[in-house]
Amino acid sequence: MITKASTPKGMRDFSPSVMFRRNYIFSVVKSAFEKYGFSPIQTPAMENSETLTGKYGDEGDRLIFKVLNSGDFLSKANCDSSSTSKELKKQISDKALRYDLTVPFARYVVQNRNDITFPFKRYQMQNVWRADRPQKGRFREFFQCDADIIGTKSLISEIELVQLSDEVFTSLNIPNIEICINNRKVLNGMVEIMGCPELFNNIVIILDKLDRIGIDKVKEEMSSEGVSEDGILVLERFLNSSDVSELSDLLKQSEIGKKGVEELQFVSENISKLGLKTAQLKFDITLARGIDYYTGCILEVKQNDVKIGSVAGGGRYDNLTSVFGLDDVSGVGISFGIDRIYMVMEELNCFPENIDQNTRVMFANFGEKESVFCLGLLKQLRENGISSELYPTSVKMKKQMNYADKKGVEFVVMIGEDEMNSEKITVKDMKLGNQEQISISEFITKLQ
Amino acid sequence: MITKASTPKGMRDFSPSVMFRRNYIFSVVKSAFEKYGFSPIQTPAMENSETLTGKYGDEGDRLIFKVLNSGDFLSKANCDSSSTSKELKKQISDKALRYDLTVPFARYVVQNRNDITFPFKRYQMQNVWRADRPQKGRFREFFQCDADIIGTKSLISEIELVQLSDEVFTSLNIPNIEICINNRKVLNGMVEIMGCPELFNNIVIILDKLDRIGIDKVKEEMSSEGVSEDGILVLERFLNSSDVSELSDLLKQSEIGKKGVEELQFVSENISKLGLKTAQLKFDITLARGIDYYTGCILEVKQNDVKIGSVAGGGRYDNLTSVFGLDDVSGVGISFGIDRIYMVMEELNCFPENIDQNTRVMFANFGEKESVFCLGLLKQLRENGISSELYPTSVKMKKQMNYADKKGVEFVVMIGEDEMNSEKITVKDMKLGNQEQISISEFITKLQ
Repeated sequence: MITKASTPKGMRDFSPSVMFRRNYIFSVVKSAFEKYGFSPIQTPAMENSETLTGKYGDEGDRLIFKVLNSGDFLSKANCDSSSTSKELKKQISDKALRYDLTVPFARYVVQNRNDITFPFKRYQMQNVWRADRPQKGRFREFFQCDADIIGTKSLISEIELVQLSDEVFTSLNIPNIEICINNRKVLNGMVEIMGCPELFNNIVIILDKLDRIGIDKVKEEMSSEGVSEDGILVLERFLNSSDVSELSDLLKQSEIGKKGVEELQFVSENISKLGLKTAQLKFDITLARGIDYYTGCILEVKQNDVKIGSVAGGGRYDNLTSVFGLDDVSGVGISFGIDRIYMVMEELNCFPENIDQNTRVMFANFGEKESVFCLGLLKQLRENGISSELYPTSVKMKKQMNYADKKGVEFVVMIGEDEMNSEKITVKDMKLGNQEQISISEFITKLQ
Repeated sequence: MITKASTPKGMRDFSPSVMFRRNYIFSVVKSAFEKYGFSPIQTPAMENSETLTGKYGDEGDRLIFKVLNSGDFLSKANCDSSSTSKELKKQISDKALRYDLTVPFARYVVQNRNDITFPFKRYQMQNVWRADRPQKGRFREFFQCDADIIGTKSLISEIELVQLSDEVFTSLNIPNIEICINNRKVLNGMVEIMGCPELFNNIVIILDKLDRIGIDKVKEEMSSEGVSEDGILVLERFLNSSDVSELSDLLKQSEIGKKGVEELQFVSENISKLGLKTAQLKFDITLARGIDYYTGCILEVKQNDVKIGSVAGGGRYDNLTSVFGLDDVSGVGISFGIDRIYMVMEELNCFPENIDQNTRVMFANFGEKESVFCLGLLKQLRENGISSELYPTSVKMKKQMNYADKKGVEFVVMIGEDEMNSEKITVKDMKLGNQEQISISEFITKLQ
């Protein structure tokens, strides 16, 4: 019986040309992380269900992929025609696939706390899985690259993450990067001054939509949520404040607000003193991502030419590990979205030329005797670190050249009777189209 | 409620010191693959169940991890108290986790056959999952690194895989590597000459155990399987044949056997002409791994000092993609076992020194003013590609030095009032224990 060759919904194969590009992004991000002193860890694809359940809200719980217990899973379950999926799920599945890197990291930290020297700077680059409805740019398996510094409240860490973002996007050659920064405490202060701290969550959710729905609609929605007219006037003043010192003035009546402004000031003043390579740092009071999670600084990185949402984001959290029984671990982290970064780089043509050119030299195959002769030369090339190969059979030259062409080979070496009897090889330059006779050592020098 | 921090049975966290070592192995293997002209692909962690089911035998089917359908999975299932696990499984799970890289690769090739230029040299480095009983050295999640050349029957490919194995283990600095080679056709011929071709499978299974059970037990088992006394005498002659030419003589009555010897000869003669860097190539007639799968050459790589089984293995197959509806795709491949390679390298001390030393320089933190000053110097170091960091808070020096020590930092830079007012920084060499005052530019030169 023949099986149909297909991939599950929302999951992707990556072909060589895509893989070369993805690997390029991975290696740039990895180098930047390591240059900043972050160390790699990895956690397993599967976690015990209780590690993940309840950590991402009801919506998240629904989207976690569950792994069926192996063996005769039903024997230990109570299942009859009245069973519901929810009841049965717990009985037949005790493991689930990683949904993000943060919760497994928190679990890792608690489990390994005796071996970790804090502050702990770790990075983690792994796939995560979500049973989301697949759509353009949203997949059920995707890659996350996270860097976190935990075990310190120092704002030096926030400065590092801003610099790290600048480093990553500069190295990737992506222009017009904007690093937006806000602070949860500033938002707390603002809502206090607006006179409705009890509406905090509703207010930030509406505020977060400002870009899409405009100021009038924002005011309308706030009003219907119960924000007073005075409160909305205060909000407008905050939205119009153009820099951190104005903000400071607006927040002078709020203790928590003043703290937030101080933090923002420390980060932004130091960054402006140090300078960024190519990115712009910008304060944005409407930035409220992960608001039920972050407790201090909030970061979001955008590319201004491609409308695709954020390419990285993060912030400071105070209770990463409490849920696993370890209190008072403050941290700050950032997550880079590899799929979006890929799309931006494709659209803006940021990938280096010849990125999917792997084999530099191909030896054409003119028959057994010639190909055996080529093996010796091939070995010399490889010993000199030159990526090269021999076409395995002596099929028509057209087919061999087509292969070389598709693979983006730079040079095709042709060895026939003549070349075997002389000290010269015939080399065809695939870009220029010309041929020359040179010695193998001259050729190697040329390639280095 | 507090969740207990633990990993599922048979699954592992990898801490920084392990990850640095694993990443080192990955990067060496990847470089070797690419130098030989292999291109990377990746397939999703999940496949449709029908892609995997029935491809690994009954035992394999049992060990495949199944993913529960998302949402209200029971609504479409027929489940009552008489349901069996097997019946229900099909109804509530239509996806499964990758069990190896070969079947997903075959599926990939068929699905993308119009975009692939054959022969196709691909490598793939990804995790696989098996619901095996965990034991020492056997995990439920482990990494495979496969390289295959498909779409050609040329024996040049076999030569390449032998060279590639030599390249990988030489680059990893692992001594005493033995590459064992056999050929399915030689085994077919031998069993033909033994006079019992119908017992082929039983014979090779017994033969494969020779190492463990010894020759007398092998003869005994063969005899009880129905091999004649003459047959056993023939077998002994084969086992005593010390090289390929003797084999040739023994097989002169078998067409398929002669073909097998020719193939072996072509590979081994060319390899001995070309020479290997450090590995030994050895013919081993008892080598019978994957015998229901391989059709020609069989390869197995062992390290002779560590008793751990094979560190790589592979062979030629003729019908990789038939099951997905594409006939006549011959290929040859090899798979490197990263976990075993890791264990061998640990035991033989093959990892480079300082492999888990990531941060080369740490700036000690003496307070806010000093640390802000350090940020500027830190930036200069990083701009020169030097991995470095600033301790984020001004805690006791002992704690900071302990952190530097644990992280394997080479130099700690100390900047106090004096250093801020002079052009010199104080640098402590963590290995030698001494301190010196130098300028930042002298320090950068020293580090390059």
